[in-house]
Amino acid sequence: MTTLSEVARLAGVTSATVSNVLRQRGKVGEQTRLRVLEAVEQLGYRPHLTARALAEGRAPTLALMVSSIANPFYPEFALAAERAARAHGRFLIVCNTNDDPATGRAYLDQIAGTLSDGVLIMNANLPMDDLKKTEKRGAPVVLCMWEKPDAPPELPSIAVDFRAAGAIAGRHLIELGHRDIGALVGSKKNGIHAERYRGYLDACAEAGRKHAQERTRYIPDTVAAGYDATMAMLKEFPQLTAIFASNDLPALGAMNAIADMGLNVPRDISVIGITDIQWARLSRPALTTVAVPTDSAAEMSIELLLALINRSSKSPVMRVTATPELVRRASTAPPKKR
Amino acid sequence: MTTLSEVARLAGVTSATVSNVLRQRGKVGEQTRLRVLEAVEQLGYRPHLTARALAEGRAPTLALMVSSIANPFYPEFALAAERAARAHGRFLIVCNTNDDPATGRAYLDQIAGTLSDGVLIMNANLPMDDLKKTEKRGAPVVLCMWEKPDAPPELPSIAVDFRAAGAIAGRHLIELGHRDIGALVGSKKNGIHAERYRGYLDACAEAGRKHAQERTRYIPDTVAAGYDATMAMLKEFPQLTAIFASNDLPALGAMNAIADMGLNVPRDISVIGITDIQWARLSRPALTTVAVPTDSAAEMSIELLLALINRSSKSPVMRVTATPELVRRASTAPPKKR
Repeated sequence: MTTLSEVARLAGVTSATVSNVLRQRGKVGEQTRLRVLEAVEQLGYRPHLTARALAEGRAPTLALMVSSIANPFYPEFALAAERAARAHGRFLIVCNTNDDPATGRAYLDQIAGTLSDGVLIMNANLPMDDLKKTEKRGAPVVLCMWEKPDAPPELPSIAVDFRAAGAIAGRHLIELGHRDIGALVGSKKNGIHAERYRGYLDACAEAGRKHAQERTRYIPDTVAAGYDATMAMLKEFPQLTAIFASNDLPALGAMNAIADMGLNVPRDISVIGITDIQWARLSRPALTTVAVPTDSAAEMSIELLLALINRSSKSPVMRVTATPELVRRASTAPPKKR
Repeated sequence: MTTLSEVARLAGVTSATVSNVLRQRGKVGEQTRLRVLEAVEQLGYRPHLTARALAEGRAPTLALMVSSIANPFYPEFALAAERAARAHGRFLIVCNTNDDPATGRAYLDQIAGTLSDGVLIMNANLPMDDLKKTEKRGAPVVLCMWEKPDAPPELPSIAVDFRAAGAIAGRHLIELGHRDIGALVGSKKNGIHAERYRGYLDACAEAGRKHAQERTRYIPDTVAAGYDATMAMLKEFPQLTAIFASNDLPALGAMNAIADMGLNVPRDISVIGITDIQWARLSRPALTTVAVPTDSAAEMSIELLLALINRSSKSPVMRVTATPELVRRASTAPPKKR
């Protein structure tokens, strides 16, 4: 590999001058600058990013930790975050924790502050203490898509009003006339989808109705779990006319289960999700959902992380995205007359 | 951030000894070793990966370049590659070229040999010359899922017999009794899906049939393009009873178009794809497809790349995965009697 000193030798200048030209620092005459750039070109020299990062006391990438890259939402978020990172001249490393805190800790220990000088955390199931330790070691951490705008976490975050999203979904079903609604919550009872479910309950309360707890299932956030839970719930409660799902994946599973039972969405049963992943648009019927602002959340996350890196600000900051919005598609309709 | 010499000071040894303990090299007495590890623990010291990589003349990550992370196949491949990389103690950087050779070149220039010491290329639409230049600069390159096992490329590669996959898909439709078949090819005429289409034509020829060229559409490899092309083709050739798609995404688009035209898959029209992405299983009807061995291709790619990095072998090597296999689901059936 070509070195800085080989470039310097060919250009007839010192290594410091080559470095100044490449980093656009210091005073270098125009002719010298051109001679250096010619030598760089001729020798195919590339400034050594890691060396430069070490010299400057910073590492060159940003890391995004996700709980499961197999969840199709995360690549969509990663794509948006990667675009935003590239727009700021940074590369994004995507780390997949597979929902395992030990793997997550290994990534934090190995990557934060060495390969990456900042970390975005997306539902990576990591104890807050591990994250704070990472921050203390000098690598800022941003929680992406924090679920509770009214309860800022102890770390900088981008918050999405998921409770509002749940309320919008619930209101939509109730306004269509649904009274017998089953709920799929894609996390444990106090897990990351609790706020969405709380929003749904808000909508029920607003309408003067009470959701019967036995019509709620706490399940993994997957198509398969949504499928199984819907099968089981419709056998137990055949009178249900609508399914509220706290995420698009279980909602898509619910639609498959309903189809496989020989019923029709939305004629027999309406289904609504939250997020608006690509497959919400592409399923048949297309899924009615409450869209969260994924792209802007990703951009805001990158911007906040870079601000923390550059300013070394350590105070927790929370920024809130635009409010989620209903996207009406083909999976919801008024309930059948009996 | 804690430094090596702080650890050395606390443990009462030299920095070289700390380094030996952490790298499990050299002779270090058990008691000294424990004292060093205690100091490491106490100070929260992490070996500086980039510094170590520089010292050892190697960079610490592997890079995977994909043409579009929005294509759901790539996260599936990235997941498998990331697991294989982690199993070898490496981190994987995913770079998204957005099908743009200039972006791809920027990634190669910035990453290869600095942040990463090897690059996996997945359909990243990059000129072979750029890749060879990267290799010449010392960063091995492996082409993942090369389409032509009988024509090895000039760079190391993992090949998949995509022509066989196309033939398997074609044979399945013909054996079901289909004679009026439309073909969706998810690339330009001589693009990356040409081999799959050639395999489909092989199956037609074996059966003594000729596919009429006007029943083939060369389209982008997306659900939307498959949708539009199917709409157009079924209007032009209403007698079609089956669609061969060179990839699952256009096949899923074809199924949506058929549903939106008020027709039934597979009763009116059968649809088959190639790859077996997650959504092939999850669509309704579930998509019949020819599964390519994604996970093992990813593992083989990582292993070949590491072998090239470690041995500095420069001769092109091609390894071929297991042959693709038919996965019969609900989207194919014999044609209706007329």
